[in-house]
Amino acid sequence: MPRPPTFTARAPGDNRPRLIAIDWGTTSLRGVLIDAQGHIAQQRALPQGILQVEPGGFAAAFDRHFGDWLALQPDMCLLSGMVGSRQGWQEAAYCPCPAGFGALCNQLLWLEGAHGIPTAIVPGMSVVPQASVDAAHGVPDVMRGEEIQVMGALHLMGQDSGLLVLPGTHSKWVQAQGRSITGFKTFMTGELFAVLAQHSILGKTLDSSAPLDETAFAQGLERARSSDALSHLLFGTRALSLFGALSPAQSASYLSGLLIGQEMATMQPAAGTRVALIGSAALVQRYTLALRHAGCEAVAFGDEATWAGHQAIYQYLTGTSS
Amino acid sequence: MPRPPTFTARAPGDNRPRLIAIDWGTTSLRGVLIDAQGHIAQQRALPQGILQVEPGGFAAAFDRHFGDWLALQPDMCLLSGMVGSRQGWQEAAYCPCPAGFGALCNQLLWLEGAHGIPTAIVPGMSVVPQASVDAAHGVPDVMRGEEIQVMGALHLMGQDSGLLVLPGTHSKWVQAQGRSITGFKTFMTGELFAVLAQHSILGKTLDSSAPLDETAFAQGLERARSSDALSHLLFGTRALSLFGALSPAQSASYLSGLLIGQEMATMQPAAGTRVALIGSAALVQRYTLALRHAGCEAVAFGDEATWAGHQAIYQYLTGTSS
Repeated sequence: MPRPPTFTARAPGDNRPRLIAIDWGTTSLRGVLIDAQGHIAQQRALPQGILQVEPGGFAAAFDRHFGDWLALQPDMCLLSGMVGSRQGWQEAAYCPCPAGFGALCNQLLWLEGAHGIPTAIVPGMSVVPQASVDAAHGVPDVMRGEEIQVMGALHLMGQDSGLLVLPGTHSKWVQAQGRSITGFKTFMTGELFAVLAQHSILGKTLDSSAPLDETAFAQGLERARSSDALSHLLFGTRALSLFGALSPAQSASYLSGLLIGQEMATMQPAAGTRVALIGSAALVQRYTLALRHAGCEAVAFGDEATWAGHQAIYQYLTGTSS
Repeated sequence: MPRPPTFTARAPGDNRPRLIAIDWGTTSLRGVLIDAQGHIAQQRALPQGILQVEPGGFAAAFDRHFGDWLALQPDMCLLSGMVGSRQGWQEAAYCPCPAGFGALCNQLLWLEGAHGIPTAIVPGMSVVPQASVDAAHGVPDVMRGEEIQVMGALHLMGQDSGLLVLPGTHSKWVQAQGRSITGFKTFMTGELFAVLAQHSILGKTLDSSAPLDETAFAQGLERARSSDALSHLLFGTRALSLFGALSPAQSASYLSGLLIGQEMATMQPAAGTRVALIGSAALVQRYTLALRHAGCEAVAFGDEATWAGHQAIYQYLTGTSS
């Protein structure tokens, strides 16, 4: 494994790009080219997730999709997301929580980069129970890609601490303190919604393409405060449909409210908490409503959190200011 | 709609069968022919659920599958299950809980029977909130087919009251008192297990055909006592697999334990309770372990509960003793 490179100060007037920042997930590949002034010069998004790459083909795929950027000789390439998983380019060991921003930078996995450009994978993070990782004593948790978004959002907010929520297929609730990630929890919310809508009996009376019905969504949130098992609350969605009390559009929003409401019931953010939301506009809308329902305030970020996180690493490694 | 027929006492030596009892579900059709002495003379099981029958084709399908039994001129045919749903032969309105055995018998939906044989659909039961059925104030619950199994199991136990559990695609926990069903709750446990195993990321590290691993199952039961959302507990199953702490066979049992454990956590049967379990051998095994884990005792029934329930209705209508 290559050792971390040393970065020397740039010559004045050096106009090469600073950085190629890549988020390479399971189903998508996104990247930005950061110019000499620290701005996004170009961006690219492709439906070429790691599942689309044959084993051993990552270097070639990277070169194919970003060879023109590499030819501009940036200082480095940073890759985050599932590209560091067992199914990715190379497995990057998780940073166990609590882990600070410096630890993350020091545990970058440096690769044999293309075109002689230093290239590293950002490691994911894990929560590992103190006792031992087994089904009897302690259940671990993991993330890959979200750690950089969290660091980026903290940077953008000018904060070192806070509660951050990253809704998605597998939603993450992350606690940060002193520029460290001190703990997090994952919820399979987006995936549960999708498999239930597509493959369960709920799908028969549910229109998952309908726009959000805020009333039905709030009713789902409210219902999720019940201590009853989700499997019972889900059947209730079906029963309400059978009785004509939820239309297919309302059912979709109600189900969404149930699932997001169960996250809220687990995490119980204190009223008045200012929560950073990082995700797509549609999900940010829903979680903003859910947080408001619990008396919290939401501040939203999209892709910019990812790129700010990559830039923060660049600055850490090169001593450049932003 | 035909009126309920009157049944007169049988002539001595009348050896015609008493009853054709049918359980017609979503995906299967099962029936027994009860002889003049009250014993099962023949039984039949076909993969011809109501979804396989074209609208308006139920009388013809029934005649096709059971015409030879109908030709023997039994006193009546009774049908239970989803055959009484909107997608079935004819929609039989739910009996709202609490509903006694007599109410169920008096609300049979009599059809224009084939071959001049009185034929009725056993209505399902509902739990309807007092306030109103809507997503804001009250979520209803429904069953079709389980009510007759509950009545049958009570009959077989010689009891009027008790807690009964019917595990399956949609598991039911039923409270009976004084030969009435006073309330019940449905859990989409079996369906959730199936869609997660087949369509979610959990399926990648899970062998749902593996035999039960009792240790992993108990670990899932124990974990389900957590107040954390199911969507988080599910991701824990994934994380344990990633860390090599659950094999694919163990993952399946652990997931099953999580889902059944959430039923237990919702219903919280008191230690020492004797619970009647009605279902397939494989599910009865799992729920017996789960009930023992909670200090309860289980007594198991299979199909015999269904047929005992049909026979109890026959006896009620004809004044015959068993």
